[in-house]
Amino acid sequence: MSLALSSCARPATYEVDAINERGETVPTAIAGEHPLTLYLDKRELVTLMTLGAAPEHLTLGYLRNQRLVESLDELASIQVDWETSSVAVTSTSLATRGVSVWDDAAQADALAARLARRTVTTGCGQGTVFGDLMDEIDRIELSGHARLTEETLYTVTDRVRRHESIYKVAGAVHGCALCANTGDERGEILRFVEDVGRHNAVDAIAGWMWVESVSAADKIFYTTGRLTSEMVIKCAQMGIPFLLSRSGLTQMGHEIARRVGLTMIGRCQGKHYLLFTGAQRFVRQPVRAWA
Amino acid sequence: MSLALSSCARPATYEVDAINERGETVPTAIAGEHPLTLYLDKRELVTLMTLGAAPEHLTLGYLRNQRLVESLDELASIQVDWETSSVAVTSTSLATRGVSVWDDAAQADALAARLARRTVTTGCGQGTVFGDLMDEIDRIELSGHARLTEETLYTVTDRVRRHESIYKVAGAVHGCALCANTGDERGEILRFVEDVGRHNAVDAIAGWMWVESVSAADKIFYTTGRLTSEMVIKCAQMGIPFLLSRSGLTQMGHEIARRVGLTMIGRCQGKHYLLFTGAQRFVRQPVRAWA
Repeated sequence: MSLALSSCARPATYEVDAINERGETVPTAIAGEHPLTLYLDKRELVTLMTLGAAPEHLTLGYLRNQRLVESLDELASIQVDWETSSVAVTSTSLATRGVSVWDDAAQADALAARLARRTVTTGCGQGTVFGDLMDEIDRIELSGHARLTEETLYTVTDRVRRHESIYKVAGAVHGCALCANTGDERGEILRFVEDVGRHNAVDAIAGWMWVESVSAADKIFYTTGRLTSEMVIKCAQMGIPFLLSRSGLTQMGHEIARRVGLTMIGRCQGKHYLLFTGAQRFVRQPVRAWA
Repeated sequence: MSLALSSCARPATYEVDAINERGETVPTAIAGEHPLTLYLDKRELVTLMTLGAAPEHLTLGYLRNQRLVESLDELASIQVDWETSSVAVTSTSLATRGVSVWDDAAQADALAARLARRTVTTGCGQGTVFGDLMDEIDRIELSGHARLTEETLYTVTDRVRRHESIYKVAGAVHGCALCANTGDERGEILRFVEDVGRHNAVDAIAGWMWVESVSAADKIFYTTGRLTSEMVIKCAQMGIPFLLSRSGLTQMGHEIARRVGLTMIGRCQGKHYLLFTGAQRFVRQPVRAWA
């Protein structure tokens, strides 16, 4: 049984009038922000505030990154309905046997326990991670063979800079890009997602990678946002060995990246960068000898 | 019985080595980020990721903004202990009668119900709001008399720009400022808090205002972060009629500000700004006639 996804992206920007310092009325584009309540076999799980650009992949990535669903086989469908600001996730079990796996008392208890443990993470806001993500960190093993060259780093920075984005039009969103690190596509953007919540953007990419069976070891992850603990944890969980940002980082983001052996590079702007951790995977440009 | 607060701010920045594009090792300041688990009469409530600059006020503001505590009289002490990354909030009831109010079955149920409703808000991350904040919005009445002049707006923008900040040293944090809007202090910063979580910064200011009995109607709130729904809700809840930011806004932030009648101004930079809502409280500079 294959997973049925709706396709309900919302318009990304809306126009409102503002008055500027000269007293002029200025039509101004602003980013969408919508509540989206997740129902897992009719159980209300959580309400995400989202731009709504990739709600199905966001839902999928959220379920995966929160470790609420282990395998795609468990899911029959993900249906977004903006009329009711909701997304209905239906398990294969409910769809085929008429019985939700969450009807099982032990499963329901496990879900309740997961939901009860809350970590309000950094983000710019107070993010939510269920369960003990930190315990997981020590079990993650990132590719030892992958390498990132300085040239590819500059390509990624340049591609992201030139990418059409909601940010350029309306601001108030964060973007994430998944980039190739092999072959002719090296450094090119494979997927770009923006959201009013930066963790939503990561989750939407994770969901897309999951449903499309995209490998992680040969990819590069770029975020416009800060490298906080949760951002580093999510990148490591996804199995991507390279995390790039044009912003800075926090102490715990640094500590976790070091511990898990992630190659993390901040302040990527033009030909500038700061390599913080995982230097063994980074290849600086050889200095060219005069011909 | 007066509220006993510990005083346990943590160092705001730490130094790590990074390697730049010239292959040089650069000592780099990064912002602290620490988990802080809140216990309410020994009940684990939530874990916040914080810079740790104002943990007691953060705790207090969090409890208030989530509507978990209604009155300061309910609380006997707030004790932060970084050794265990925790903050113990003790109710007056437990301190004086040896019985927690949360031991009462109905109270415990009410708390559990509050904690069960989760909205993962925008922020940059996935913030948490317990209960139905949106329902509250329609009951909020902001001062109809308060006025903000263009001159004061420029003063606030200038004061924030010149303020010493962790952001200037290490990036990766958001700042909030509470500013005066009366007398000689008009436009001056009364309180400035930075945090890795921007909602933490707001909560810390709310907690400080609460414990110090600071009035709200004659104040201005400034945030370096985006004007998302939760930021607008928090400002309105605090009763502050003016919300300023150097960043942009989201559609829902705009919609809520309009609904609650908040005066909201974005893109404040130098002598530029965009007035989005609540224009009736804003006074543009009179054009000076030639002398």
